Amino acid sequence: MSSDSGCCTAEAQCPVYLCPVDHQHFMQRSIDLAQLGLGSVAPNPMVGCVIVLEGKIIGEGCHRIFGGPHAEVEAVASVEDKSLLRSSVMYVSLEPCAHFGKTPPCANLIVEMGILEVHIATLDPFAKVSGRGVALLREAGVNVHVGLLEHAARALNRRFLTFHERKRPYVILKWAETADGFVDSLRTATEQPASITGKAANVLSHTWRAQEAAVMVGTGTALLDDPSLTVRNAAGRNPLRIVLDREGRISPNAKLLDQQAETLILNEQQDFTDGLNRWVRLQSLDDLNEVMTMLWRSDVQSILVEGGPALHGRFVETGLWDEARRYVSTDRLNTGVSAVRFPFNPEEIMQVGDDQLHVYSNHRTA
Amino acid sequence: MSSDSGCCTAEAQCPVYLCPVDHQHFMQRSIDLAQLGLGSVAPNPMVGCVIVLEGKIIGEGCHRIFGGPHAEVEAVASVEDKSLLRSSVMYVSLEPCAHFGKTPPCANLIVEMGILEVHIATLDPFAKVSGRGVALLREAGVNVHVGLLEHAARALNRRFLTFHERKRPYVILKWAETADGFVDSLRTATEQPASITGKAANVLSHTWRAQEAAVMVGTGTALLDDPSLTVRNAAGRNPLRIVLDREGRISPNAKLLDQQAETLILNEQQDFTDGLNRWVRLQSLDDLNEVMTMLWRSDVQSILVEGGPALHGRFVETGLWDEARRYVSTDRLNTGVSAVRFPFNPEEIMQVGDDQLHVYSNHRTA
Repeated sequence: MSSDSGCCTAEAQCPVYLCPVDHQHFMQRSIDLAQLGLGSVAPNPMVGCVIVLEGKIIGEGCHRIFGGPHAEVEAVASVEDKSLLRSSVMYVSLEPCAHFGKTPPCANLIVEMGILEVHIATLDPFAKVSGRGVALLREAGVNVHVGLLEHAARALNRRFLTFHERKRPYVILKWAETADGFVDSLRTATEQPASITGKAANVLSHTWRAQEAAVMVGTGTALLDDPSLTVRNAAGRNPLRIVLDREGRISPNAKLLDQQAETLILNEQQDFTDGLNRWVRLQSLDDLNEVMTMLWRSDVQSILVEGGPALHGRFVETGLWDEARRYVSTDRLNTGVSAVRFPFNPEEIMQVGDDQLHVYSNHRTA
Repeated sequence: MSSDSGCCTAEAQCPVYLCPVDHQHFMQRSIDLAQLGLGSVAPNPMVGCVIVLEGKIIGEGCHRIFGGPHAEVEAVASVEDKSLLRSSVMYVSLEPCAHFGKTPPCANLIVEMGILEVHIATLDPFAKVSGRGVALLREAGVNVHVGLLEHAARALNRRFLTFHERKRPYVILKWAETADGFVDSLRTATEQPASITGKAANVLSHTWRAQEAAVMVGTGTALLDDPSLTVRNAAGRNPLRIVLDREGRISPNAKLLDQQAETLILNEQQDFTDGLNRWVRLQSLDDLNEVMTMLWRSDVQSILVEGGPALHGRFVETGLWDEARRYVSTDRLNTGVSAVRFPFNPEEIMQVGDDQLHVYSNHRTA
């Protein structure tokens, strides 16, 4: 990623001398800023923007919330003396838009403000508009560079990209298992599910809910655990709660139907809406592809699949998963409900409190 | 059990010469006959009776159905020429009654018919009436012997004896597990439970339902499997279906509430009756002793606890079990729901079709 060998290849064109490490530093800052929109800009992509004058950041911004200003608009607005922009370089993690959407085109704003040079990490992923922002800027005489930290920028928007490229939500499988591979003890349905992980992991798990468009559980988990699936131990909005309930076996008293957050009940029997609860009938819940297509049509960009292991197994069997987050605790249960068979190698292993977090990727989105 | 050494010790008193093996043979026949009442005479004990003249059986009978004639009455009735009874010996697996119940006292009948000698395997277990039948017979001059095959006779009525002695139902735990110790696969709640055992075992399991007063499952099994718990693959009456449902989470559409057989829903919320379905509220379902006492008060003499493993675990932890029947198949699942931890040694291992049946006893009732 970083390199301190030689000078900036773009030196001749740059108003300010910058080595590649500086370029990367500013683009990384854009990507870090973009990350602040996680969980609030979907179904838009996350975008961050930095404005640099003579090697110093003089303005920055990000797309914070769906319907709110774009990153470039925020960054420009953050620079009080707009005349400085005429000597500045912009770093933006995604190609500036060239179309009128909820806000006017950012490419026009950049031209209008007289910014000399723009570094873009990656082009707009939509084939129909991809490159149009770049073309508009170049036609106006702006010096445009594309591809800096492109891999990181695509990873940042892996939900958005997977959603549009594969026409289905980005799927994150999540569970916690003991050192001997059990996700739950042998317990009666009236006992609370076994608490496998510690406090740090539990807080992080709630944070994850707030970061995704939706959380999904199977019928078994809904029946046995009566989960609420809301965000309680962390800050953030509640995700859409999705439950598979083919035959309408979930009790009307279930926490999932408590109107505390939106719930989508995928079933094979009825289409029906009651307040925040929406029943949607599919031909067959056997076909996960059909389920995924329905969610894509409903603009659900990502789902955190919280279980149980049988539902995880269906995603694993069909290859319909992008990421997996598996907590492994130090405890042993000896008997219980097994975790899904998951014969993959983690990309990363982290310590979260007393627990290990194994992170898996099914494929690179870049 | 058998002995061919020496002559009958009762020779001098016997009208007919019999060696001990013959005595045992006739008493064993009484016990075998008694067994025919399994599943239909409860809450009465099973009783069988044989009438022997000159070493040959001339009459026999058993208590076939609750409210029907006692074994002695059936045996006497089966002898056409009642004058033969005056030279005969009776073998009966339980002390003849001396009180007027649903039928007149059998002891009176025996005296009336002039039977010379009566062999009784075991006395009436009720302290208040125990020995009264024997006393009545002896006062009338009948030659009475008690204790032949007593152990087998008590084992025969282990449900009845446990029920009265321990003031709770006789508890049989039953499950089937794979060679690697799983009772179910990781499956979604809409898939059928994994079929672990073969046809022979399945038929036998249904026979077992017909043999016990009641079948019990926990909330989890009721929610996930939606079982009917009726007798379908074998002959016999449906047992009372008992389900633990503390919070009323079982769907009104559950097969257990289909009015095809009596169902007792033990809960912590309501007392209510709807046709064959009866809700009974207990202070707490946490206390299995309270559950057992309630069933004892309701005259439920025996229960076949079919799971799941968490419910089995509660019976094992509290020691509230008398017998366990554990099928072990030859298949492996690798992942799934573990069987209950059951660190006991089987009394017997049988082959049932392709499956092994391990039978455990928690204590001798004799």
